[in-house]
Amino acid sequence: MEVMNFLNEITSRHPEAISFGPGRPYEGLFEVERIGEYLDAYIRHLCDNLGRTREEVRTLLFQYGRTSGHLQELVARTLRNDEGIQAGPESIVVTVGCQEGMFIALRALFAGPSDVLLVSSPCYVGITGAARLLDIETVPVPEGEDGIDPGALRRTVTTLRAVGKRPRALYVVPDFSNPTGTCLTLAARRRLLELAEDEDLLLLEDNPYGFFTRTGTCRPTLKALDSQRRVIYLGSFAKTCFPGARVGYVVADQQVQTRDGRCTLLAEELSKVKSMVTVNTPALSQAVIGGMLMTHGYRLREASKAATDFYRENLTVLLDCLERLLPPSRREAAGVQWNSPEGGFFLTLSVPFPADNALLEESARDYGVIWTPMSYFYPDGGGRYQMRLSLSCLTPDQVAEGARRLVSLLDPSATR
Amino acid sequence: MEVMNFLNEITSRHPEAISFGPGRPYEGLFEVERIGEYLDAYIRHLCDNLGRTREEVRTLLFQYGRTSGHLQELVARTLRNDEGIQAGPESIVVTVGCQEGMFIALRALFAGPSDVLLVSSPCYVGITGAARLLDIETVPVPEGEDGIDPGALRRTVTTLRAVGKRPRALYVVPDFSNPTGTCLTLAARRRLLELAEDEDLLLLEDNPYGFFTRTGTCRPTLKALDSQRRVIYLGSFAKTCFPGARVGYVVADQQVQTRDGRCTLLAEELSKVKSMVTVNTPALSQAVIGGMLMTHGYRLREASKAATDFYRENLTVLLDCLERLLPPSRREAAGVQWNSPEGGFFLTLSVPFPADNALLEESARDYGVIWTPMSYFYPDGGGRYQMRLSLSCLTPDQVAEGARRLVSLLDPSATR
Repeated sequence: MEVMNFLNEITSRHPEAISFGPGRPYEGLFEVERIGEYLDAYIRHLCDNLGRTREEVRTLLFQYGRTSGHLQELVARTLRNDEGIQAGPESIVVTVGCQEGMFIALRALFAGPSDVLLVSSPCYVGITGAARLLDIETVPVPEGEDGIDPGALRRTVTTLRAVGKRPRALYVVPDFSNPTGTCLTLAARRRLLELAEDEDLLLLEDNPYGFFTRTGTCRPTLKALDSQRRVIYLGSFAKTCFPGARVGYVVADQQVQTRDGRCTLLAEELSKVKSMVTVNTPALSQAVIGGMLMTHGYRLREASKAATDFYRENLTVLLDCLERLLPPSRREAAGVQWNSPEGGFFLTLSVPFPADNALLEESARDYGVIWTPMSYFYPDGGGRYQMRLSLSCLTPDQVAEGARRLVSLLDPSATR
Repeated sequence: MEVMNFLNEITSRHPEAISFGPGRPYEGLFEVERIGEYLDAYIRHLCDNLGRTREEVRTLLFQYGRTSGHLQELVARTLRNDEGIQAGPESIVVTVGCQEGMFIALRALFAGPSDVLLVSSPCYVGITGAARLLDIETVPVPEGEDGIDPGALRRTVTTLRAVGKRPRALYVVPDFSNPTGTCLTLAARRRLLELAEDEDLLLLEDNPYGFFTRTGTCRPTLKALDSQRRVIYLGSFAKTCFPGARVGYVVADQQVQTRDGRCTLLAEELSKVKSMVTVNTPALSQAVIGGMLMTHGYRLREASKAATDFYRENLTVLLDCLERLLPPSRREAAGVQWNSPEGGFFLTLSVPFPADNALLEESARDYGVIWTPMSYFYPDGGGRYQMRLSLSCLTPDQVAEGARRLVSLLDPSATR
């Protein structure tokens, strides 16, 4: 990913700069010692709860495994507890991170050259990159302040149909999206689901940040509201457990017809694709994540409380600092504004001059602060005057100091 | 994979049957207890040999990691020791099993609709399946007794060029191939490399079984003989360490031009593709495999001695039993013959009647023995009168009893 390479490169040249760049989770909450503990918990579960023999455990950990994974029952319980999502284990495929989930979902759903994937603009680069690998056309739908606008979506669908295209699915991050930090209102969620039903669209819901609320408000996921099986839910344990496990999953409970006319679950079709990409998700990674789910009583929302508090504080500190250093009159004079995300890792800052690589270079070198040009996230151009600020892997002190440095870049008069 | 599903289904209906079906490695040599030991060994390596801090180890195990992996140096040492392959760490990409290696190599190499992948016929279904997912045309090249025939390959290439196709690469398993068990002679290896150079072909060399010699003969890999960088080497730890780790790698030391005209290694292009498929290979899996490589002094050939002995005995027992139960006169009368693989997991048995699903059903039900119809491995039809026998996950006693049962199916007079 071009944006990551550029960020890594600039970071290595300016190691002392405070970086609002990477969207990685905070590492202070990871404990190496606990890996063995989680693994043991999972092995005990296999033996004590499921009655597996020692030989069967050995097979499960060492041998090739089922393509769809061996955590589906545990994931289903956790989804029920955390999100009120009712999904049978047979509709779940465990994947090598959410990225593989997106990849196999796209490959299974998109058949012909007229099929089009709709994405918000700006958009997470993992989905547009996966679509590009598979030669799938993506069409951007502009975001408003509260995320993707159902009205704009309907107009885009109509326009596409008029030229013979088939809008197949919309990729959407309803909660605290990457890159903008926006969150869909409950009304917008309902309208999106109605629209999906009316227009025969599927919704690819990606929800890595949903637990990390700043305001305390949590809205139901699209999948929890989905009575018509319009939503394919892309799950990630990267931010709620840890990214290095590379364990994600897809909930695909749609009925589909196979080529030979059989009726089956979409999850089964995804498994077939996955068998030719990675065969199955590494058993050890699944076992450690399984152990974490068990240890936390199949409730990751509660288990993520420390992380939620951490990100809330960071986002609050950032908003407070910006407010204090650039009060309304001053930010109006400077031509700067930002949104106030209700949670998540990201905030959008708008500036009156191009927030491009050249400015980033100057910012890192002369002001000691790094951010991501928002233009990288626009599939169709745009975002030239915006920055993405990520606060997920800084301490609150670093956030405060980073905000100060950023303001001296934006408005040199502010911190004098 | 259709063949696997059918085999699994028939096995579950006839659990008492002896199965020459699956090509999984033998599990008796796996030790659950050692997982922690290998993990610790790798962590010690990071701290003691590489001077990493506790925090850096935590980051490596828990965080997103480099797309190309963190085992390249260890893999390069092991390849040097085991195969005499000289490959710099920068030319290696660690993958989620060899399957992902095949997948990303195909995606990176095949650009246009006239690009064609050549495969042996019969052929491993993992490569043809990956090509199908990516809409890449495959063209089969018939195998002879010693594997793919360079002469037939040259004729196929000429024919394809005449109709405007561009043969881009040949997928080949030179040692004890799946499904037939054939092995390329040294002369054929050299001719294949010459032909690749003459015809501007790449060779995708897949080598999962190379250590498992029955006769003691080991031939150099294509990559070890490759002075012109014609070979992309697809590595697997599934049979030398364990499949559940899902750790493989690709050696791609070719110089290529990027779209923007830069000169780079093919490995770097593979990494870009991988970043959109799985982001990176799970750190825990890499760490356990890394620990195994270290523990074995970066020499898997020696460490695989017990496995090599095991598979040798099984193959010897199978060949001896067939020879004893069906001596030349009798097998001639019965119209049955088989090859004598020099190693590996597989043997080809030819019979005078269709070795199809119906016969397999009868074989499992009435004779208590399961095998794989060879036709599943022919991309273009063929193999109707052949069976693949796999002996990798049976005990020698089971192999002997399985052979007896098989012979009573083939020649009811033989065992009376």
